[in-house]
Amino acid sequence: MGSSSISDIIKTLEILVKIPIYTTLGISQNNLVYLSTEEGIRSLWSMDLATKELKKLTTEPIHSVAIPVKTSPYIIFTRDVAKGKELHKVFYVNVLSGVEKLLVDTPPMRIFGISFDGFRAAFTAATAEDIAIYLAKKDGSWEKLIKLETLAFVTDVNDKYIVGYGNLRKDPKTFEIFTYSLETSEFKAYTPKPGSQNKTPRVKEESILFESNFEGTNRLYLCSPENNAVKKVEFTHRDYDIYNPVEHDAYGWLDDGKIWAIGRKNGRSKLFIDGKEVPTPSGTIHGIPGFLESKVFVAVSSLSTPPKVFEISLESKESNIVINNTLPKELEEKIGEVKHVRYRSFDGLEIPMYVVESKAASKPGPSVIYVHGGPWAEVGDVWSISIASLVTLGYHVLAPNFRGSTGYGEEFRILDIGDPGGGDLLDVVHARNWGVKNNIVDENSVAIMGYSYGGYMTFLAVGKHPNLWKCGVAGAGIVDWGKMYDLSDAIFRKFIEVLFANRRNLFKERSPITYVNKVTAPLCIIHPQNDTRTPLKPILRYMNELLELGKTFEAHIIPDMGHFIATMDDAIKILLPALVFLEKQLKS
Amino acid sequence: MGSSSISDIIKTLEILVKIPIYTTLGISQNNLVYLSTEEGIRSLWSMDLATKELKKLTTEPIHSVAIPVKTSPYIIFTRDVAKGKELHKVFYVNVLSGVEKLLVDTPPMRIFGISFDGFRAAFTAATAEDIAIYLAKKDGSWEKLIKLETLAFVTDVNDKYIVGYGNLRKDPKTFEIFTYSLETSEFKAYTPKPGSQNKTPRVKEESILFESNFEGTNRLYLCSPENNAVKKVEFTHRDYDIYNPVEHDAYGWLDDGKIWAIGRKNGRSKLFIDGKEVPTPSGTIHGIPGFLESKVFVAVSSLSTPPKVFEISLESKESNIVINNTLPKELEEKIGEVKHVRYRSFDGLEIPMYVVESKAASKPGPSVIYVHGGPWAEVGDVWSISIASLVTLGYHVLAPNFRGSTGYGEEFRILDIGDPGGGDLLDVVHARNWGVKNNIVDENSVAIMGYSYGGYMTFLAVGKHPNLWKCGVAGAGIVDWGKMYDLSDAIFRKFIEVLFANRRNLFKERSPITYVNKVTAPLCIIHPQNDTRTPLKPILRYMNELLELGKTFEAHIIPDMGHFIATMDDAIKILLPALVFLEKQLKS
Repeated sequence: MGSSSISDIIKTLEILVKIPIYTTLGISQNNLVYLSTEEGIRSLWSMDLATKELKKLTTEPIHSVAIPVKTSPYIIFTRDVAKGKELHKVFYVNVLSGVEKLLVDTPPMRIFGISFDGFRAAFTAATAEDIAIYLAKKDGSWEKLIKLETLAFVTDVNDKYIVGYGNLRKDPKTFEIFTYSLETSEFKAYTPKPGSQNKTPRVKEESILFESNFEGTNRLYLCSPENNAVKKVEFTHRDYDIYNPVEHDAYGWLDDGKIWAIGRKNGRSKLFIDGKEVPTPSGTIHGIPGFLESKVFVAVSSLSTPPKVFEISLESKESNIVINNTLPKELEEKIGEVKHVRYRSFDGLEIPMYVVESKAASKPGPSVIYVHGGPWAEVGDVWSISIASLVTLGYHVLAPNFRGSTGYGEEFRILDIGDPGGGDLLDVVHARNWGVKNNIVDENSVAIMGYSYGGYMTFLAVGKHPNLWKCGVAGAGIVDWGKMYDLSDAIFRKFIEVLFANRRNLFKERSPITYVNKVTAPLCIIHPQNDTRTPLKPILRYMNELLELGKTFEAHIIPDMGHFIATMDDAIKILLPALVFLEKQLKS
Repeated sequence: MGSSSISDIIKTLEILVKIPIYTTLGISQNNLVYLSTEEGIRSLWSMDLATKELKKLTTEPIHSVAIPVKTSPYIIFTRDVAKGKELHKVFYVNVLSGVEKLLVDTPPMRIFGISFDGFRAAFTAATAEDIAIYLAKKDGSWEKLIKLETLAFVTDVNDKYIVGYGNLRKDPKTFEIFTYSLETSEFKAYTPKPGSQNKTPRVKEESILFESNFEGTNRLYLCSPENNAVKKVEFTHRDYDIYNPVEHDAYGWLDDGKIWAIGRKNGRSKLFIDGKEVPTPSGTIHGIPGFLESKVFVAVSSLSTPPKVFEISLESKESNIVINNTLPKELEEKIGEVKHVRYRSFDGLEIPMYVVESKAASKPGPSVIYVHGGPWAEVGDVWSISIASLVTLGYHVLAPNFRGSTGYGEEFRILDIGDPGGGDLLDVVHARNWGVKNNIVDENSVAIMGYSYGGYMTFLAVGKHPNLWKCGVAGAGIVDWGKMYDLSDAIFRKFIEVLFANRRNLFKERSPITYVNKVTAPLCIIHPQNDTRTPLKPILRYMNELLELGKTFEAHIIPDMGHFIATMDDAIKILLPALVFLEKQLKS
């Protein structure tokens, strides 16, 4: 319908980035701790639960945060210290005083799993050479405990154990849990059944709570670090079983020993305490709820509703908004129907997909096939600035959860292991075709767009299926698996090995640069300068090839930024060129 | 003094690009023919001088235009047919019917001088292999008349002669005029005095009018194509001599045989008829005036006033605006004092410079040293979207006319021949220092910015004088003269040979890539994808070096665009990233 000037686009985008993301993290000293982008930067905030006063705890952008401990005022978090290169150090902030300090002066490393028990922090970190488990204490001391020869993540710590999970059997299709004894330094891997997926152990005294699919479906289990006798978690209430979740976003123990869990299905999630549902709005619960006495604090959003923070009484089930967040009416009324659909792909496999129609577009109309990153991730019913900006600016968005996506069970997730850019790419192609057949997508005005693995799929799609796309937008994408492998640090080499199931002979066939000569659609390439996951260097080579071949492309290299988007300024730098490009390509 | 959001920046920019450029070209069949960007694209327009009705003659962007002929309805022009690669074909449009057609179906070539006499068009054009003079006729026939082994331009044609000028003696510091006889095919070069500069001959029957400095100052001379007896043009009126121009932008004969001339001095110009000044507003006259009976039509602008078209009565000297064009008050009031200053450079040479202060900046305040392209060009007192956007967004702009600039005499112009990136670069450095000393430039908040040769100077300045700049913005710049020479077509190879006075051993020393390791200031690199003057390929290599060296840079590659900016959309794509970058670097 109408076209937008750059002013219109930036106006919409500036409104959208000013709508904060809220993710609760837990409770520390009577404060709800949460992540927010409220002042444009991914920061830690606290809400004093007595006064409801909000306080910004950190100024510079932060990366990951250990789940807070109720009895400790210290919040442990990591921060990039290398301009987006994802070389982190560990910091803490005192939730009461607001004082922020470096916790331990390690060399900068890629830290990708960090836990805290009030006294010690444990984390997994990678350098160019190795992956290892580290322990840090409040007194500033730290040690490298043990090297890991595989992809693995610390997920919890207490005074006796560090626990986590990883590809410990070196089978790319399985995950095992591990315990590291702080007393004996013994590292033990455990799986209830070889070939099963076991993830995200939490530890409480001598009890380990984890998710496993060894009996078929992902369910929660308990075991002890010592004898590992495994026991399925049985709840008092039936809501959980009736809901029948496919996966779990988070779980743990309440103070009284009851187990809470956020179950997940079809891109939405629900919170259960001892099997009883805590009523939350439809959509996705962000992060770890804060449990305090008879109240729970959760942040919830959906594809059409930005995240709000709710306080829910566990007794009355009454719910109050404690942090509100609304979309201006003029944008809200452009978001049309949100549908969760399933379509059959090339081989008959059912692929789930979110479809968000735009009321600012005709039907069929200009559309974007939005390919998520990961690949082990999903587009759920959760607030997304990218999708919201596309829809409000007049594009129908189809976001396929191609094979390999999370949220639909482990069997589905592992389907792209050993086959990246194979079946998953065809699933994306079939998402487009479904949209055309269902009269949503104008087949002459459809773009493919994605970031990270979604950028990879975009590059590959315009090379292998050139006639299907009016244009492509590839953010932080991958064009050459071989070159990327050579440029990766230890953890990303492992990641690539797992993803390809060690089939390195596939690198060339699955690399977009192999098909650069076949590209016909104009490409918009957006890439962070300091990206260490999907490095820029091979992209520059790809651009040179496009140039030599006389292909139409534009490129935007974003300075001092890495793969991870930690500020809203960076979000604008990534999205604005994409939206201006789409406007020209799909609407004029 | 306040900071601007991206919305503010794009709002300002969208206002500025909507202010059209007007350049008159002459009269055709009682119509004033002019160039305008009124609908966002560089197009030919006409004004019916009986009804004052305006008509857009061309839709797709055009490149250059031959001066119209009063008695012919055909306007001959060139247009890029290769997505900005500056491969042109010759078209015509009938000013009465508005019908537009291809004139001759030549291969696409870089056409850089075209003239028309109502019956035939003559032009100089370059391919990868050679430079030659071509003749095209209205019946669609065309021929390649003669190859030229040097940098040369056709500037006029009649039924007997094609005339033009170039480095015909292969001396990089001189220009000679030439005549090509259409009757005998004889090509003759002429200079009144070896070592002098002779330019832009116009031909009328057996008379040639040209500019020469063989007697010291650039003056107009007449000669005949046959015997070349040269005679200085003497005017009846004294205004011209009193004004004492340094150069001439244009000249020719009126119907009654009188000579008109636009003289130029200190970045401003004035129109004279037979030596008598035609009163025009202060600033710069754009293009070729339209003379009709006792009226003259001129477009005039200044650094603070967008171009308007005036109708001036030669009898009463009364002047009326026939096409108005105003800057909105909120932008106008941000433009401060416009000063033409001179400062001493490293060697004592006086360098002229335009300084435009911003009322939206403190003093001293954030400033941009704006380096013009060319290098044989200047920043005069003429409307510039780039300078206007910088000033209205809160930067003082200093635009030095470094040695090598036009507008200050031939002796000054040839000072960079054999020394590009030498003395001229130091002049630019001294412009910055002058600004600091004169309390205009905040020495901690000064950028260097330029396009084309100005982009080259930017790359070189941040490499050779890294501590002077907070940041740099290089548009369509040059980083490697050797690589650029290899990638150039015949005319740009000649251009480089002349600029370096054949000192190829200087290529490396004067190439920014040689100093890439010394860069410390963040760089914003903006480059058209299809640029054939300053090709992208070496820039990609330079980016790769910046990346490997861990330098901060951002880059924006503009698709389907060449060196020449023919649409306002492209102007926005070039300027917006620059302005967003400067905002962050100089104001936060």
